Amino acid sequence: MSILIKNVLLDGKERNIYIEGNQIEAISEAGSTKEAEFVIEGKDKAAIPGLFNAHTHAAMTLLRGYADDMPLQEWLETKIWPVEARLTEDDVYWGTKLACLEMIKTGTTFFNDMYWHWGGSSRAVAETGIRAALSAVFIDGFNMEKSKEQINRNKALYEASKKLPARIIFALGPHAIYTVSEESLCWTRDFAEKHDLLVHIHLSETAEEVEGCIKRYGMRPVEFLDSIDFLSPRTIACHCVHMNRKETELLKKYDVKIVHNPTSNMKLAAGRRPYEELKEQGLYSNIALGTDGCASNNNLDMFEEMKIASLLHKAFSGDPTSMPAKEAFELATVNAAKMFRLNSGVIEEGKLADVVLLDLKKVELVPNHNLISNIVYSANGSCVDTVICDGKILMDGRRVEGEEEIKSKVSEVAYELVKGDERKD
Amino acid sequence: MSILIKNVLLDGKERNIYIEGNQIEAISEAGSTKEAEFVIEGKDKAAIPGLFNAHTHAAMTLLRGYADDMPLQEWLETKIWPVEARLTEDDVYWGTKLACLEMIKTGTTFFNDMYWHWGGSSRAVAETGIRAALSAVFIDGFNMEKSKEQINRNKALYEASKKLPARIIFALGPHAIYTVSEESLCWTRDFAEKHDLLVHIHLSETAEEVEGCIKRYGMRPVEFLDSIDFLSPRTIACHCVHMNRKETELLKKYDVKIVHNPTSNMKLAAGRRPYEELKEQGLYSNIALGTDGCASNNNLDMFEEMKIASLLHKAFSGDPTSMPAKEAFELATVNAAKMFRLNSGVIEEGKLADVVLLDLKKVELVPNHNLISNIVYSANGSCVDTVICDGKILMDGRRVEGEEEIKSKVSEVAYELVKGDERKD
Repeated sequence: MSILIKNVLLDGKERNIYIEGNQIEAISEAGSTKEAEFVIEGKDKAAIPGLFNAHTHAAMTLLRGYADDMPLQEWLETKIWPVEARLTEDDVYWGTKLACLEMIKTGTTFFNDMYWHWGGSSRAVAETGIRAALSAVFIDGFNMEKSKEQINRNKALYEASKKLPARIIFALGPHAIYTVSEESLCWTRDFAEKHDLLVHIHLSETAEEVEGCIKRYGMRPVEFLDSIDFLSPRTIACHCVHMNRKETELLKKYDVKIVHNPTSNMKLAAGRRPYEELKEQGLYSNIALGTDGCASNNNLDMFEEMKIASLLHKAFSGDPTSMPAKEAFELATVNAAKMFRLNSGVIEEGKLADVVLLDLKKVELVPNHNLISNIVYSANGSCVDTVICDGKILMDGRRVEGEEEIKSKVSEVAYELVKGDERKD
Repeated sequence: MSILIKNVLLDGKERNIYIEGNQIEAISEAGSTKEAEFVIEGKDKAAIPGLFNAHTHAAMTLLRGYADDMPLQEWLETKIWPVEARLTEDDVYWGTKLACLEMIKTGTTFFNDMYWHWGGSSRAVAETGIRAALSAVFIDGFNMEKSKEQINRNKALYEASKKLPARIIFALGPHAIYTVSEESLCWTRDFAEKHDLLVHIHLSETAEEVEGCIKRYGMRPVEFLDSIDFLSPRTIACHCVHMNRKETELLKKYDVKIVHNPTSNMKLAAGRRPYEELKEQGLYSNIALGTDGCASNNNLDMFEEMKIASLLHKAFSGDPTSMPAKEAFELATVNAAKMFRLNSGVIEEGKLADVVLLDLKKVELVPNHNLISNIVYSANGSCVDTVICDGKILMDGRRVEGEEEIKSKVSEVAYELVKGDERKD
């Protein structure tokens, strides 16, 4: 399949973008002619790389708005975990379908997921055409029986993943150091190294996690992971809020990747890791942004995430020049592409054809003094008009195939899931 | 004119809302029949009161994205003020038109404005049909000649305002204590009292303002205003970031209204006034939310503002239960209606017909476990389908009259205004 995007704003000029298969084959001056099966008129549109959501639990769209404004532990124990225990693979399939739909509609073409019922997530991703790294939640609760079960399950999923489209990346998902035994973490380390897999883990999200680690292992979380040789450039460490300088130096030493989830950290009052310090330590290009799951955000809009990230660091550092728009945008594009080892994150010849067109006629984008400022500080996902992922058109003029069915089916599934609990409108 | 909204979700049930003139005349069970000139099908929509933007500089849409990520003083002196000095009344008219368009499209039916060229703003508001309190920037720079000029100008504008539609409220706009002389502030106080006018002022926005006040008057800003008997229930004090307990007690004593601008305060790193303390002092119902101008936000979306307000206070207080969704929503509706002495802010019989319909089919609002949570934490302005203000339909199915002309004309005006400066795309 070939696609020609004509007269689209790219790097300040109108250009033509020619896509062949799943790659950007050529970028030329507007006006030059080249035939393609699909032609998209790019006038009054701007082309940007598809955004990356570097940490989420996609199927938690099912729980959007279900339990907000609660203390973290009570929220998990009385609301989130009991519902998750009832989830079926079909529920996860529908929840992930809704998440994919929401991400496509808001210009995200890649997400990094960790959730239950991997089969449900991977089926949804395969169908919707988005790109993703999918890991199954690995929790053993320090129980060796469960550890074995989880290991066998992950081996089987890894094999199963080979039959899926190449845009679906199998990753390992050891949940966190307080839910996974040292033995399982060591297995993860070895299996990941043997098969060159990414490892998706929550790390130092809360102060309690750090205290618990010191109690259990006599070390802080990153020190503990270092002590078992767990850290590597394939480690995708999410949150990284409560770390001291020695720990962030270890992240640097092992080229560990860091996913920052500003909205979730603010909503759950988890804390903030000074971004300025990480930059100063040379970790800038290791950082990407994630929305976290919909239960703690409550949407998957990466435009909003870029803005909130920038605002958070300006406010906490007291420096209005902290995380300028350009950096927030890079965290959601080029940095993330590097993190997930994808040849994308910018619109250039030879890159993967993950391309988003913004509608420059949206009121939030008028006037257009500075497109990157408008994208980060003014736009939201509704400014996205067209989404191309892996060389396929997933959204055209804001229309996505099957949208109505997904929304109505998800509502059924979601209400059934929390039935018995009081609904509030 | 009469409008019937049929089968719309309101307080958890499908109902009919009947509007006659500029009032909500009746609310009844869905299905009951009553004829009206306009009938709106409300199926799969929810009715909420129009949102209030309690502090903005509407025409600054012209400078959206023009100068971001700069230190405050440099930003004002090298970018904002030089451009503002070149503004004409026609520029302000077009900038305000764009702002009104953006607010209508994002569900805001009232805004409180302070800007240059009052004639331009009032003309734009009169035409677009939105409700507003409009004040002219009053700055005398401690120059008695200018003070006289400004006083005469405000007297004339007050007279002129009597000819405008009742939905346009004339207010006084003494800019701040560091730009307006004591003499002018005293004139404002007396003129406002005599004519029962609202007084819109920036107060204690930055630490520098407080230091400057102590240097000039030997007192902190709120103490100084108290010393000249300036404070009253008609005072709309914006920002209120840098205040001590004695000052917030003075706000309480005089029933002063407080506008909180979380995005602007975060973006410019101005600081945060603990919301929890204001609540504890009984000031909750005196607080409303504002976006501030587009140069420091950079949009006018009150949905985003509610979310960012809630996130800011959760993050800074360390308490995830701080500013729950319901409170953020009240700050943007009922509290603001009280502040501006309007019989609105809720959907009830006898209230002003300022009504917004949300499209419950938008992906961000699915599933609908809790509408208020969805509104505050997940929605953005693009979830708004229909806007009625003062009993007139300003947006229907996201269509607003004259939208294309406004956007193209504003782009021309905005680029002309900054011509000579480098544009970045």
